[in-house]
Amino acid sequence: MSFNTFGRVFRFTTWGESHGPALGAVVDGCPPGLALSEADLQPWLDKRRPGTSRFTTQRQEPDTVRILSGVFEGRTTGTPISLMIENVDQRSKDYSEVAKAYRPGHADYAYDAKYGFRDYRGGGRSSARETAARVAAGGVARAVIPEVRIRAYLVELGGDPIDRAAFDDAEIDRNPFFCPDAGAVERWIEAVDTARKAGSSLGAVIECVAEGVPAGWGAPLYAKLDSELAAACMSINAVKGVEIGDGFAAARLTGETNADAMRPGGEGRPLFEANHAGGIAGGIATGQPVVLRVALKPTSSILTPVPTIDRDGAAAEIRTKGRHDPCVGIRAAPVVEAMVALVLADQKLLHRAQVGGA
Amino acid sequence: MSFNTFGRVFRFTTWGESHGPALGAVVDGCPPGLALSEADLQPWLDKRRPGTSRFTTQRQEPDTVRILSGVFEGRTTGTPISLMIENVDQRSKDYSEVAKAYRPGHADYAYDAKYGFRDYRGGGRSSARETAARVAAGGVARAVIPEVRIRAYLVELGGDPIDRAAFDDAEIDRNPFFCPDAGAVERWIEAVDTARKAGSSLGAVIECVAEGVPAGWGAPLYAKLDSELAAACMSINAVKGVEIGDGFAAARLTGETNADAMRPGGEGRPLFEANHAGGIAGGIATGQPVVLRVALKPTSSILTPVPTIDRDGAAAEIRTKGRHDPCVGIRAAPVVEAMVALVLADQKLLHRAQVGGA
Amino acid sequence: MSFNTFGRVFRFTTWGESHGPALGAVVDGCPPGLALSEADLQPWLDKRRPGTSRFTTQRQEPDTVRILSGVFEGRTTGTPISLMIENVDQRSKDYSEVAKAYRPGHADYAYDAKYGFRDYRGGGRSSARETAARVAAGGVARAVIPEVRIRAYLVELGGDPIDRAAFDDAEIDRNPFFCPDAGAVERWIEAVDTARKAGSSLGAVIECVAEGVPAGWGAPLYAKLDSELAAACMSINAVKGVEIGDGFAAARLTGETNADAMRPGGEGRPLFEANHAGGIAGGIATGQPVVLRVALKPTSSILTPVPTIDRDGAAAEIRTKGRHDPCVGIRAAPVVEAMVALVLADQKLLHRAQVGGA
Amino acid sequence: MSFNTFGRVFRFTTWGESHGPALGAVVDGCPPGLALSEADLQPWLDKRRPGTSRFTTQRQEPDTVRILSGVFEGRTTGTPISLMIENVDQRSKDYSEVAKAYRPGHADYAYDAKYGFRDYRGGGRSSARETAARVAAGGVARAVIPEVRIRAYLVELGGDPIDRAAFDDAEIDRNPFFCPDAGAVERWIEAVDTARKAGSSLGAVIECVAEGVPAGWGAPLYAKLDSELAAACMSINAVKGVEIGDGFAAARLTGETNADAMRPGGEGRPLFEANHAGGIAGGIATGQPVVLRVALKPTSSILTPVPTIDRDGAAAEIRTKGRHDPCVGIRAAPVVEAMVALVLADQKLLHRAQVGGA
Repeated sequence: MSFNTFGRVFRFTTWGESHGPALGAVVDGCPPGLALSEADLQPWLDKRRPGTSRFTTQRQEPDTVRILSGVFEGRTTGTPISLMIENVDQRSKDYSEVAKAYRPGHADYAYDAKYGFRDYRGGGRSSARETAARVAAGGVARAVIPEVRIRAYLVELGGDPIDRAAFDDAEIDRNPFFCPDAGAVERWIEAVDTARKAGSSLGAVIECVAEGVPAGWGAPLYAKLDSELAAACMSINAVKGVEIGDGFAAARLTGETNADAMRPGGEGRPLFEANHAGGIAGGIATGQPVVLRVALKPTSSILTPVPTIDRDGAAAEIRTKGRHDPCVGIRAAPVVEAMVALVLADQKLLHRAQVGGA
Repeated sequence: MSFNTFGRVFRFTTWGESHGPALGAVVDGCPPGLALSEADLQPWLDKRRPGTSRFTTQRQEPDTVRILSGVFEGRTTGTPISLMIENVDQRSKDYSEVAKAYRPGHADYAYDAKYGFRDYRGGGRSSARETAARVAAGGVARAVIPEVRIRAYLVELGGDPIDRAAFDDAEIDRNPFFCPDAGAVERWIEAVDTARKAGSSLGAVIECVAEGVPAGWGAPLYAKLDSELAAACMSINAVKGVEIGDGFAAARLTGETNADAMRPGGEGRPLFEANHAGGIAGGIATGQPVVLRVALKPTSSILTPVPTIDRDGAAAEIRTKGRHDPCVGIRAAPVVEAMVALVLADQKLLHRAQVGGA
Repeated sequence: MSFNTFGRVFRFTTWGESHGPALGAVVDGCPPGLALSEADLQPWLDKRRPGTSRFTTQRQEPDTVRILSGVFEGRTTGTPISLMIENVDQRSKDYSEVAKAYRPGHADYAYDAKYGFRDYRGGGRSSARETAARVAAGGVARAVIPEVRIRAYLVELGGDPIDRAAFDDAEIDRNPFFCPDAGAVERWIEAVDTARKAGSSLGAVIECVAEGVPAGWGAPLYAKLDSELAAACMSINAVKGVEIGDGFAAARLTGETNADAMRPGGEGRPLFEANHAGGIAGGIATGQPVVLRVALKPTSSILTPVPTIDRDGAAAEIRTKGRHDPCVGIRAAPVVEAMVALVLADQKLLHRAQVGGA
Repeated sequence: MSFNTFGRVFRFTTWGESHGPALGAVVDGCPPGLALSEADLQPWLDKRRPGTSRFTTQRQEPDTVRILSGVFEGRTTGTPISLMIENVDQRSKDYSEVAKAYRPGHADYAYDAKYGFRDYRGGGRSSARETAARVAAGGVARAVIPEVRIRAYLVELGGDPIDRAAFDDAEIDRNPFFCPDAGAVERWIEAVDTARKAGSSLGAVIECVAEGVPAGWGAPLYAKLDSELAAACMSINAVKGVEIGDGFAAARLTGETNADAMRPGGEGRPLFEANHAGGIAGGIATGQPVVLRVALKPTSSILTPVPTIDRDGAAAEIRTKGRHDPCVGIRAAPVVEAMVALVLADQKLLHRAQVGGA
């Protein structure tokens, strides 16, 4: 099946292929009366936009978003918000090779196995280009949760982690890697350049922190906040792992260390001594920052030839030419932010459905 | 909100609290005509059952499952299958302490923050006892996917990993840890005994492999097979991380290594040279074994006192007495298996909805 | 497929067959903190209960409802509420005839065509006995919408309508027909007795009015209040038509007559001059009483023999012996009330999800 | 809430307002490999298009549909199909009157009550213009169910019914009313002309028949075929009633008459003696033609002044100028067809999800 809608009451549906005329999203269930214009959405798209440095694909896409419905006189009306982004740089190239042979690491073979055929131009629907639509929808989500501040940044690139002691929030927007450690930036520049020139690619780990999530958001048991975040992040291209709070490292702690002890924090609220839990207990927000990390595999589109088979099952070899990101993890940071915003907007509305409130 | 249904066309809804009269699941959307009886479900519950070794809680629950609907003359009818498990060992104890103060690491505070009050007896709805209902539902799911073989086992306990070279499938059912490495079993016995006696607890990492998943199952983009598996596993109590295939380690590979090269495998199918992808590409099964790992934090219920606050916000200290698992990760292995089975049953039916087939 | 869940955020799932051990419902998404006990639900079940007069089936079912989860210390916890009703009078009779041949007007043939076989005892899942579970769930819904008063009553039986001029609200509970016109009661007693003795059966039309629904509830476009009410009512056994407000009669009005003119009603609200619209415009409540009518066909289980075929396709004739309602429309009145309550509870929560509020 | 998605596995989401730049639909879950182009969709839009006779609104909209995604080399790919229709004749007029005062019979007041404000241009989202998007989506649905033939036609206009004896299928497409009775056409021309000149409007009853629906489609209990059809039709603008088969008339039949007796029909299938049930029993198709009727109120937009209130609650009077259909029921016939096609496509896929098959 094909399920291109995400969310329960704040829902978005995306559509579009890498090389079709356009792609877009329909956001449904948005509260009415919120100030919203294209100018509110464009900055998020610009952060994810390709071609802004030599460390990302050189495809030139302005990624200009248009709002086609659901906004009247500068405010959301409560009806569906249709967002559209035209594809302008679908370079006319020869797709005969990728049409015939499967690119390892890509969804080519799986799509053929499922659907019997596929739109092979630039990966079609399986292209990360689809995430532009999510980022646009994420901009709407942010208008729904002004109380929350979301930041995603890379904490590891090509196996090289940042130095936590050198963490500087202001640094994140100063370099092309969304990297909070200026020292790591230097090393990463070299690593990505080297990989790019070698026809190789690198993976990355993104961390995302959402501050201001009120205690109580969350929907036990099968739409737990952490469960929804995991689903949202794992649906992003190239993501192979998601962890909340200490994640896999929590499996190595003892119960005493892992339990985030509480002290009186005033107004009946706790002051937590630590946040091993990443701000979520029993699927419900604790009021601490929500912290998650996602692992992204290296870009599958590489110039280095890889053995494969063609559509008839015969041996072949393929090099993925074209304009590709040497590390898809870089441009995924704004996408992770968007997905986190979309999950939180949905959970906010679900929470007030059940318990009321503004 | 409270969302206690999982799945899209093969759906299950669970209900029940740790110390209520019973708990259960309603499985909806099951194909008709499948042979099914309580005897098919009970073995899975027995694997998860408490009190079977000194390494799990000593609560004595027979966990006898009853089928109340949806099966007629030994076969499923296609109508909802109601499963019920009575709670028989809800020991009448003094809950006044846990009623008043929040257990760190537990959902106590978050439930109060969300709902205003909570059923504090044994954690109420947030208790892992609910997973018995999932395991029962998972037994129905297995009847839907006879082509798939699912195995979950521990690959790490208390930070001590198994030796992959010593992996023995037959060993898994011979020890109380679902451990495939006989050498690790010895060490884990000691580790768990030590933790238990010290009033502490340990975490674990479970790996799960599903063999026989046909290429093509999966539902891009927001119900991708990996996305659904991540959501399913992250909804299990104490889980803090999920990874598919190489997961976080994939972020440290180069593109050449990570791309699972293909060779002709006959009948137009590929023979993959590796399975870094864990059997999933673009959210769709590739026909290789589906491989995932989940990280479980140490049991939050520990005898060691932890600082906390009470319902009025005042400082308190709490020791979680009662009968608890020193490592919740152990009994979670059958739960992971059940969730994987439930996801795969749903994806099988979704797949044939869209493309037809038996 | 089998979809046994209804609702979007206030959801219920029913399970159970006519002659199984029990039937029930799981209500999910109920707000926390509402006073609820079995004593709140039982009166609604008693209204629908069989065997209370000679005008309904003589099957003796106490229909005692048990709450198995989701309520703690007399209040809802916000977690799923499991309701169970045991079947006690599944008379052991010879089902060989109905197992072999299809009862015209019943779902027997359709179930076999869909599922390949069926639970033939008393109609299995297709029996109106399932509506007991809905009525129990409806009792929970009423706790969610204390601002709304719902009344369903018969306005026509066997083609004989009530006299609107004789409408007396107090009369509804004084006779076995939920009839608001004492004069019609006399005639209906005779009509039902005659039909019963002749081995025949009669249809009915039920009207339902919900007062106190606030202007604004409703969910355009595909979960419009009227659309949801139509789906809810059409899912009740034997219902063949649903109309809102003037319904089919509205198709015979002119635009001037049909438009419910408005006068100032104070506090910015309108005072409507009429309610041809039945309290709904554009799928959203106008603040007027919500009015709907449903048409129920005559009971298909009749003693008069009807030509049919058997499972092998051969000609047969069948008389439906057993204990049946001569007019299913009578006992459907509490079911219509329950479904309306369930829809309104869902719409209330949806409304506050999007626009906030208590 | 705002729920602009319909369907369970074959789903469509519509967006757009009467006077926005465009409107559209995203169809998700469509099987792959179906031949589909804009030329397959346009004829259905042309049937519904305004301005084709003097009996419909004079707004000039070409209603040209574009496929923006999901189709590659003339075939569906299994990914979302985005359909867009530009609005070209949003006449720039003075909306100050309708912005201030509520049009009786319209959703103006209800939208304000729900959302706090509204896009008042031409009714915004509540305009029947949205149904163009449904008709486009319905064209995709037809490609999914080639085995089914769907026909909708008017059986009553302004209270004047057709003569069933004069029913001529070929006549339906020969007149501007989708009327199967040439004799009625003459009378309806006069009736509509009279109403139009008088500044009044008329209602209508549409009948729709779907032939070729296989026995077995349907999804008990809360997505029954009749329940889904009722929801789908009741969501269409101006619809106030839906009935299946004999509908309200069934409430006046006796059990013997209403039960559709069966005779052997060959291959184990029945030959039904009648179709009072309208092709559905227990929510499942019987293999007979599916028959339904919907009642549409007269157009609420009339030139005759009607008392109302303004946004401040003060008395006002409003005449709805502009270009309106004197009988919205006429152009609703293609919309009913589309909704029936959309429901049946969904039910077909649901059926094969549960029981398999092509």
